[in-house]
Amino acid sequence: MVLKRNMIERSHDKLLFTPGPLTTSPSVKQAMLHDAGSWHFEFSEVVKSIRMDLLKFAEVDEQYTTVLLQGSGSYGVEATLGTVVPATSKVLILSNGAYGERMVKTAAALKITHEVLRSDEAAVPDLSQLEARLKADPALTHVAVVHCETTTGILNPLEAIGRLVAQYQRVLIVDAMSSFGAVPTDLAGWGIDFLISSANKCLEGVPGFCFVIARKSRMQECEGRARSLCLDLYDQWRGFEKNGQFRFTPPTHALLAFARALCEFEAEGGVPARAARYAANHRVLLQTMEALGFAPFLPAAWQSYIITAFKYPGPNFDFPAFYRHLSERGMIIYPGKLTQVDTFRIGTIGRLFPEDIVHLAHAIEDSLAAMGYSPAAAANPEANGATTYSFS
Amino acid sequence: MVLKRNMIERSHDKLLFTPGPLTTSPSVKQAMLHDAGSWHFEFSEVVKSIRMDLLKFAEVDEQYTTVLLQGSGSYGVEATLGTVVPATSKVLILSNGAYGERMVKTAAALKITHEVLRSDEAAVPDLSQLEARLKADPALTHVAVVHCETTTGILNPLEAIGRLVAQYQRVLIVDAMSSFGAVPTDLAGWGIDFLISSANKCLEGVPGFCFVIARKSRMQECEGRARSLCLDLYDQWRGFEKNGQFRFTPPTHALLAFARALCEFEAEGGVPARAARYAANHRVLLQTMEALGFAPFLPAAWQSYIITAFKYPGPNFDFPAFYRHLSERGMIIYPGKLTQVDTFRIGTIGRLFPEDIVHLAHAIEDSLAAMGYSPAAAANPEANGATTYSFS
Repeated sequence: MVLKRNMIERSHDKLLFTPGPLTTSPSVKQAMLHDAGSWHFEFSEVVKSIRMDLLKFAEVDEQYTTVLLQGSGSYGVEATLGTVVPATSKVLILSNGAYGERMVKTAAALKITHEVLRSDEAAVPDLSQLEARLKADPALTHVAVVHCETTTGILNPLEAIGRLVAQYQRVLIVDAMSSFGAVPTDLAGWGIDFLISSANKCLEGVPGFCFVIARKSRMQECEGRARSLCLDLYDQWRGFEKNGQFRFTPPTHALLAFARALCEFEAEGGVPARAARYAANHRVLLQTMEALGFAPFLPAAWQSYIITAFKYPGPNFDFPAFYRHLSERGMIIYPGKLTQVDTFRIGTIGRLFPEDIVHLAHAIEDSLAAMGYSPAAAANPEANGATTYSFS
Repeated sequence: MVLKRNMIERSHDKLLFTPGPLTTSPSVKQAMLHDAGSWHFEFSEVVKSIRMDLLKFAEVDEQYTTVLLQGSGSYGVEATLGTVVPATSKVLILSNGAYGERMVKTAAALKITHEVLRSDEAAVPDLSQLEARLKADPALTHVAVVHCETTTGILNPLEAIGRLVAQYQRVLIVDAMSSFGAVPTDLAGWGIDFLISSANKCLEGVPGFCFVIARKSRMQECEGRARSLCLDLYDQWRGFEKNGQFRFTPPTHALLAFARALCEFEAEGGVPARAARYAANHRVLLQTMEALGFAPFLPAAWQSYIITAFKYPGPNFDFPAFYRHLSERGMIIYPGKLTQVDTFRIGTIGRLFPEDIVHLAHAIEDSLAAMGYSPAAAANPEANGATTYSFS
């Protein structure tokens, strides 16, 4: 870190194989070398261009609008739930991981009446159950779901969910934090009313704010519903529409970085190009990890190319040591978040390329050797044990 | 701005004479040229050092703790009010400006029972009225006040308010957004229980998060009180205490910048040095502005050295044109926010020095000349009018 005065600075930062904050391009970070006046008209132009670009990349027409909001992605989810669901309504939350559960906690904290349709962390939501609930209970006016649940890396079948919710004319709220920009998503076609994502995910900006792409007709219904001043999505929207400004101090540097990130997103080729690069990253990851003796947690059918959970190869796998060895080699991976199974996670998004995944694979091989640990041998505990094992 | 491809970049950004975001040092911005893993132990060390430094600069002992929170300063105020005031209690809000009124709006949005003790925007709160309210109503368990109200630049008498509130054993919440770090404040001595400030004010970091310095014994009472998940100050505190981490994605780059800003704060000489520099800035500002024919809105006794509101010199003063002329000269000032009187504001905080104020004064002189406007003549409308006036 830049702050340890006695440390010789590396040529580059450690690579972040995480769900975010991610490795970003040097030019995105350099865009932050400017102090902008948040009330100044030149800055308002940047904000305007960001809002227009988001709608362009989402491929939506004037039926939709977008709202930027200070804070992390979870703030966007809370602002949306808190602003959109009326006091007299009930929201059905589909949950198959930690971010679904976070929506449940958010609804509870806001005292929003809610029901939860839980499915196993290794399974997508059951559409027949969803349909049964929507048929049975007209008070369930809103449905909320996570697109890519980074707990496991599972990609929920958003199109099918959306079409079902639209058929029953309910409002659909999607946490697309880790999918937007890299997983093709047809907001209008799939019946998405509110889609929440964050600056520091697949659009490769830095953290500091999130955004909501919203169907205008639904947003217009939300005046006065919010349970908060700061997280009032409707008021925030009216602020942008009135004078192009944030109501409260925006993270100006993160916004300058994001404007640059959107230029680079477009230059790369938009959603298809980013999807292709991340998918290539993920293919290399799976190949190399399986060659090293690691198995992914999810069946391939549900696995996204965003982030992948791998099972501990054996009960004596020392993840903290593994993590430290990789960190010493300049590679930052992510711990697991599953409730039942020991996993760790490797993200394949951000300014990373297949060659970076190969570097990671070599670093993993070297780390295992240094640890004297063989995942293959761990599958047969008698061959491993507490003694050192020379990895070759 | 960096994004206009056809623009030749200036040697430096326009100077920000605003209440924030502010002009920061180049090295603070350069600290953002790094992508840090938010879960990574090296980053947790940075967070820990920031929390410790804040307590050190606040000159508080282990009675106090600090919580960092994603979002703007207003998020910190909302989180504090929402977490600290129980459902059965009532908060008394002292208001003499827009930020006092924002606390009122926040309490209303959160459905917190509140009363308001309003004073004129040009006057500090009436202490005898405050005492009468505290005596009369034991249900008023909490008092909230803005230290430096940037609407006018007024510095409220926090010591006297705090000692009175402590005498009546009420909990004191202080919005010290624009004062902390530059106005000496004795938290323990003045009976402050919760003090809220922001990264992008007098500590000269960049926007992205705020922080609350809290009396531990009061914080410990707050479990389960919050009206929000994201803005639950207690849970956020427990998160830091448990594993040194933010509960949700932190603005990593803004935190790296802040760590650097705190190093520079200490190197400059801490609160006394920063107070001296800002006070010098303010002295030069007053001298030059009065020489140019502008009068400050506030009586000198209440005026802070943080930001100063100046009255429009006459009814035909074209502020938007004045603002544009100054912007063309690389100087960004701030509009007024008063309800009754037309003012504009000039901030004297951030990485600005007395010579920058002199540059501003020259730019103001040139702008007035270009506008054909004389503040002195405007005081005598017959001498000015719609015809051009040659300023010399």
